[in-house]
Amino acid sequence: MTHDPERRRDLAHVGPLELYTPVLEESRDFFVNQLALREVGRDADSIYLHTWDDYLSWTIRLIRRERAGVGTTFVRAASAAAFERVRAEIELAGLVDGIDAGVRGLGEVVRFHDPDGHPMGLYWEAGWYVPDETDTPALKNQAAAFPGRGANVRRLDHVNYLTKDVPGTSRFLADVLGARCTERIVTDEGEDAAIWFNLGNKSYDLVYTQDWTGANGRLHHLAFATDTREDILRAADVMLEAGIHIETGPHKHAIQQTFFLYVWEPGGNRIELCNAGARLILAPDWKTISWTAAERAKGQAWGLKTIDTFHTHGTPVLPVE
Amino acid sequence: MTHDPERRRDLAHVGPLELYTPVLEESRDFFVNQLALREVGRDADSIYLHTWDDYLSWTIRLIRRERAGVGTTFVRAASAAAFERVRAEIELAGLVDGIDAGVRGLGEVVRFHDPDGHPMGLYWEAGWYVPDETDTPALKNQAAAFPGRGANVRRLDHVNYLTKDVPGTSRFLADVLGARCTERIVTDEGEDAAIWFNLGNKSYDLVYTQDWTGANGRLHHLAFATDTREDILRAADVMLEAGIHIETGPHKHAIQQTFFLYVWEPGGNRIELCNAGARLILAPDWKTISWTAAERAKGQAWGLKTIDTFHTHGTPVLPVE
Amino acid sequence: MTHDPERRRDLAHVGPLELYTPVLEESRDFFVNQLALREVGRDADSIYLHTWDDYLSWTIRLIRRERAGVGTTFVRAASAAAFERVRAEIELAGLVDGIDAGVRGLGEVVRFHDPDGHPMGLYWEAGWYVPDETDTPALKNQAAAFPGRGANVRRLDHVNYLTKDVPGTSRFLADVLGARCTERIVTDEGEDAAIWFNLGNKSYDLVYTQDWTGANGRLHHLAFATDTREDILRAADVMLEAGIHIETGPHKHAIQQTFFLYVWEPGGNRIELCNAGARLILAPDWKTISWTAAERAKGQAWGLKTIDTFHTHGTPVLPVE
Amino acid sequence: MTHDPERRRDLAHVGPLELYTPVLEESRDFFVNQLALREVGRDADSIYLHTWDDYLSWTIRLIRRERAGVGTTFVRAASAAAFERVRAEIELAGLVDGIDAGVRGLGEVVRFHDPDGHPMGLYWEAGWYVPDETDTPALKNQAAAFPGRGANVRRLDHVNYLTKDVPGTSRFLADVLGARCTERIVTDEGEDAAIWFNLGNKSYDLVYTQDWTGANGRLHHLAFATDTREDILRAADVMLEAGIHIETGPHKHAIQQTFFLYVWEPGGNRIELCNAGARLILAPDWKTISWTAAERAKGQAWGLKTIDTFHTHGTPVLPVE
Repeated sequence: MTHDPERRRDLAHVGPLELYTPVLEESRDFFVNQLALREVGRDADSIYLHTWDDYLSWTIRLIRRERAGVGTTFVRAASAAAFERVRAEIELAGLVDGIDAGVRGLGEVVRFHDPDGHPMGLYWEAGWYVPDETDTPALKNQAAAFPGRGANVRRLDHVNYLTKDVPGTSRFLADVLGARCTERIVTDEGEDAAIWFNLGNKSYDLVYTQDWTGANGRLHHLAFATDTREDILRAADVMLEAGIHIETGPHKHAIQQTFFLYVWEPGGNRIELCNAGARLILAPDWKTISWTAAERAKGQAWGLKTIDTFHTHGTPVLPVE
Repeated sequence: MTHDPERRRDLAHVGPLELYTPVLEESRDFFVNQLALREVGRDADSIYLHTWDDYLSWTIRLIRRERAGVGTTFVRAASAAAFERVRAEIELAGLVDGIDAGVRGLGEVVRFHDPDGHPMGLYWEAGWYVPDETDTPALKNQAAAFPGRGANVRRLDHVNYLTKDVPGTSRFLADVLGARCTERIVTDEGEDAAIWFNLGNKSYDLVYTQDWTGANGRLHHLAFATDTREDILRAADVMLEAGIHIETGPHKHAIQQTFFLYVWEPGGNRIELCNAGARLILAPDWKTISWTAAERAKGQAWGLKTIDTFHTHGTPVLPVE
Repeated sequence: MTHDPERRRDLAHVGPLELYTPVLEESRDFFVNQLALREVGRDADSIYLHTWDDYLSWTIRLIRRERAGVGTTFVRAASAAAFERVRAEIELAGLVDGIDAGVRGLGEVVRFHDPDGHPMGLYWEAGWYVPDETDTPALKNQAAAFPGRGANVRRLDHVNYLTKDVPGTSRFLADVLGARCTERIVTDEGEDAAIWFNLGNKSYDLVYTQDWTGANGRLHHLAFATDTREDILRAADVMLEAGIHIETGPHKHAIQQTFFLYVWEPGGNRIELCNAGARLILAPDWKTISWTAAERAKGQAWGLKTIDTFHTHGTPVLPVE
Repeated sequence: MTHDPERRRDLAHVGPLELYTPVLEESRDFFVNQLALREVGRDADSIYLHTWDDYLSWTIRLIRRERAGVGTTFVRAASAAAFERVRAEIELAGLVDGIDAGVRGLGEVVRFHDPDGHPMGLYWEAGWYVPDETDTPALKNQAAAFPGRGANVRRLDHVNYLTKDVPGTSRFLADVLGARCTERIVTDEGEDAAIWFNLGNKSYDLVYTQDWTGANGRLHHLAFATDTREDILRAADVMLEAGIHIETGPHKHAIQQTFFLYVWEPGGNRIELCNAGARLILAPDWKTISWTAAERAKGQAWGLKTIDTFHTHGTPVLPVE
């Protein structure tokens, strides 16, 4: 499966994004103290947080909900014309849920959902982050001051959703959003069990994994990028001291070769810290890498067996039948 | 100066590239032993080398010449249609030098030159690297085996050319190649002294700096990307042991925030090892960062004064009048 | 259990050391290519190897044997007088096996054995490493040139032996060798299951773990120190490409907080690459840290469960009853 | 000049230490926010600070003074008997200033001074650090919780004093304190210009450099150890954002091969962050490394020229004649 280089790249990147948590303040403290995000706004039931090198006015919004999970993922169009083209594709697919002009820091948002029901929002116009006197960076080519705290995550990296229909979601990503599949896991029956799609040169931005429960709209994890692998090793010590549950890592994935650490934030959502080194997908005709069940069974790059909860924990957490 | 998001991104990346050297074998040994490239071919007067994660069949070609310098820089179009669009722009600009179907590993190449005379080649069709039994990677999403040697450079990153006409070159990059200016140095007279342009999400791929000698077609440096800053610290020890001239670094640039090491390969060409951490330009409407002469005078990010030879050494080396 | 500061420190360090392997050349290639040791001598059935910053003339000697395992561990006295004092203690304990003046690079060696039967050699006089023109270091305060290859291990760090009598070995280390116990694992019955002893400021040099088979004289692992944790992460990629069995890691031990990677060299011996950061035992009255079985059950520092083979693999490998 | 292995090692380590500053609170904020020390006590004119892995109850005491500089350096004896032996040597040398039983956290202190007049204190009895509920470490073999903030310095590493009499100070270190010279800079006239002495396995603990002003009792710098070189690279970004003056680095010294960063704390004292990797002096008969003026002129390990202020700035700052 080779990428179609002629297909226009109409989406720039993923973000900002909404995350649900039953313990709003505890989750806020985790993102601020352990990941080094900054609180940039709040209302009755939500808090807006910003990573130090995100050009947008906010990176994630924590929303108080009874159960953890992912809210709306906003995706930015690559241009005003691209916004109209993707909007047309979404309408054609009958996935539009409405238009919203009231999202903080963004212009008009076309609200829609993926085939699995995850809420999404397409936008073009966006306000840029304006630091105040306490977080003005020393270097003008950076969004905000370097925090030098905890994991120091630079920016949002990707979202990994659970879905009960991987093939359908794959068609949606390719045909409606124009994303490209860089890697995938194929079952012995020849069906996709997990798919990694990218929008630009990053090796992936949107990931979908088969939901073992058959439920809809759940989250596997949300990931933030760090500058170095050392940031991730340090983060592990930071999580240990803070009593944050470390699920697995630091280690390296064979798939996409990402150096990773997975923790569960206080609300229960799985958060990944990731570093890709200098790896980028520069080939416009990249050939999708397919991993077999046997290859997947080998575990991570350096032989670590994949931890069981990786296949049993998602948010919202569902009652076991 | 804000990027024009509507301008189509018709170039995928820079590379492969030709480099001239008066000491072919010594230069080859440097790239193989200290940077960890692999020799993949040679003819009477040149040697083809490959970095371990370049999907193309070769990364740089060392050519025996009386004087060091840069040869042809090949740039890959983003698609077959993009190839035709850029080809038309180059013809319109009257910069075409001819068509070449004989470049190793590439399909038809449109040979042209930038306004300063640096030879370039536009291509779309390209053969991919095929490892042999001695460098087949353990992970199938990697071009070749990880060498674990010296600086372990992953891939070609960017080229920094010297030019006597920065403004003219800037128009060429924007209007003919459709590249985007992410950062620049502006003189007190308001003229560009150096410009950094990118083609995708990397913060820069092509850089032009004012040539203090007024000569044409010279090279400031060629850069390779490493996965970590630690690779660059280790590289410094490797260069020290090998007796390679370390010009400056390891340190961090304020401009583009690149962590760097500059050395002179045996042939005299300046080679940079660089690491950008997780920094990428994801904003489709990125606003060009302008640095003043005063800001530049501050030196590098952490206060290191820019070394004099950085403003006096280029290749080919010109006789001092 | 607090250290006795009055007890004189009569041993300087562990090393050199002999290692048995059934595949001499394959083991040699592993230590040279993946760990960056240098071959400095050989005879009919053995090869001498040197780490780049070992002041001694050789670091380990690989000896061809039918079965893998540890040979003689040589320990250097802190002075000529210290040599006599320790020699007297060994004689008093009735552990002397003889005197040997024929060990390469060492002066007179008092051969003895620990209570479990591991052969050891006490020496004072030693020749220093003399680099030749191919490995003379650029910096005169270093034993040999920095190899910049694979794991780049700087020096031998410690030896972890298996023993059927931990308490007896503990008394031997304290009373005969004058070593100090920095950390230990205590069973619910109050008995030591594993003990870490040091000779100077390193947190440990000699480790003994209960041998689950009840056998004598076996090896759990031999460890080499790297300068950074990044060296160990890179080493994991190097081992992966070389097809070397990675048993566990890279990860961090709770005990001693060592960042580690365990691999099995071609001969079957377990080799650890370790980094302690800036951690040293500077307190002369250090209080031994005791870990309970419950604490040990928590696994490694960041929650990784200890791999089963860590409790079932030792060399020589014994036939399962 | 070879070490005398028979000379007993009667001093365990350097620290705690007093530092003078004209801006007490600003200096305190630097050590707490940028270096990650913790405030553990204060009185009218001083503040006690602790590094996260110092087993002692405090690491440095900031004292308000009109001018910056170093106060008393306390050195711990290796045992009660060692305390008496060194005390006798100090008395024999006629350097005793008095006995003090009132130093926070320490037992009886023999106050004395080096030949240059720097105040010192010898002690044996010392109280250990007791973390409270807010900084109890997750791992029991660590003094306090890992802060994960700024430079995260683990412990005090060494002190570099300025002296007008290097040879006299050298005799004092060797004959009175029993320290050993690991490296030195020798002038063309054959005199020591700078000397590095160690007490245990660290490559150095006490350093004296010729004071170009001919003054007495001044400080060149105080150094703290970090676990990795990455901690030091990050620290540079942290200092940049905090507006702390970065004098030189990050870079690597040829002498002792220390990876370093030098900054001036708000009070004016030069502070070094250092990392030695896995380098230790394990040879009991280490041969002192002598560097010539010519070798020193080469600059740092990777060719960086030594910055001028390194030879002109010391504390207290003296009026230029």
